[in-house]
Amino acid sequence: MTPKAEETRERILDAALALFREQGFDDTTMRDIAEKADVATGAAYYYFRSKEDLVMAFYVRAADEARDVVPELIGQSRDLKKRLRAVIDQKFEQFGDHRKLLIALVRIGIDPKHPLSPFGRETEPMRSESIDFFRLAVDESSTKVPKDLRADLPRLLWLYQMGLVLFWLFDDSPGQRKTKLLTDGTLDLVFRLIQLSSLPLMSPLRKRVLAVVRAM
Amino acid sequence: MTPKAEETRERILDAALALFREQGFDDTTMRDIAEKADVATGAAYYYFRSKEDLVMAFYVRAADEARDVVPELIGQSRDLKKRLRAVIDQKFEQFGDHRKLLIALVRIGIDPKHPLSPFGRETEPMRSESIDFFRLAVDESSTKVPKDLRADLPRLLWLYQMGLVLFWLFDDSPGQRKTKLLTDGTLDLVFRLIQLSSLPLMSPLRKRVLAVVRAM
Repeated sequence: MTPKAEETRERILDAALALFREQGFDDTTMRDIAEKADVATGAAYYYFRSKEDLVMAFYVRAADEARDVVPELIGQSRDLKKRLRAVIDQKFEQFGDHRKLLIALVRIGIDPKHPLSPFGRETEPMRSESIDFFRLAVDESSTKVPKDLRADLPRLLWLYQMGLVLFWLFDDSPGQRKTKLLTDGTLDLVFRLIQLSSLPLMSPLRKRVLAVVRAM
Repeated sequence: MTPKAEETRERILDAALALFREQGFDDTTMRDIAEKADVATGAAYYYFRSKEDLVMAFYVRAADEARDVVPELIGQSRDLKKRLRAVIDQKFEQFGDHRKLLIALVRIGIDPKHPLSPFGRETEPMRSESIDFFRLAVDESSTKVPKDLRADLPRLLWLYQMGLVLFWLFDDSPGQRKTKLLTDGTLDLVFRLIQLSSLPLMSPLRKRVLAVVRAM
């Protein structure tokens, strides 16, 4: 792609995201987007086949941004809780501007067969990368994690993060204050559970959790 | 309502559920339903203002059925795991015939502001009753449950059940075999966690879980 084409493409994506934010995903047409980006509707379709394509480009852009900052944010502390917090905070910061778009998407995103679902086949590369941030957070932290848990813990932490994001999308408390409380409380719990999981007493329970995770 | 009116109303509801099952919720109209129930479209509207009303009637009927059988099913054992299993099995049995309807509903049901959402205001009476089944399962079981956990545990167990139902709806494995595995595995874990929660070692963790639950 030439620099000029690249610039046009980015302008169309910015216009789309602004419109999704202002008037929601469902009520925005490709024509609206083209108009706002100051290109012909046909040109908008040349770069993006559909609104869904634009959402996929939003996912890719979010992944690009995260790749640039998350490893450094994680690396600022060896404390596992702080490292997990860094991953989660970055996601909320990044998603903060796009809550309205994401609310529109959650209804389709919950179905793993939908191409835009975070649980589906099409989004696998982004999902892997997000899971790897949690792997990085766990791997070089000062907290000892049992060897058998290391492989699956990042995926479990990613699922936990998805749960927080889902809660946030439907959180009507002022400034999504409840999500903040839930994140603080549960992150502390998750951290303590990881610590406890090293105790010999917990070994049978840990093995059972892993057996369930692996069967899925 | 006269017995005849009651009979007509039930016939319309049965016709609606059969059509939702055969052709899905979205593709069924009130007109289709009236035709199948052999009543005029106006008559169908006299009993149910909308398809959403029919779904609400389905919820009410499911709650009526559960009220008739769940307490007895729970009472067949004092073993907590078996008692929880009885509640969960009854739900899956009841929902088994209506998977297609429920798949159509999950996209709206995930939003707690939607009147048909199991998390919303309008469905509060059915939700309370479902939570009370878990309370009954816990209260007279042979497993000792710490006093501070008793109040909130039924709601947590209900949320756990909702998670299983959500997984089941998107489970494409033959006969939803994976849901069976997940239920077996996690029910065992839940049971063991409840047992562990009595240990003095676990008391701080238990208090933290409850603090998070209560803040929500």
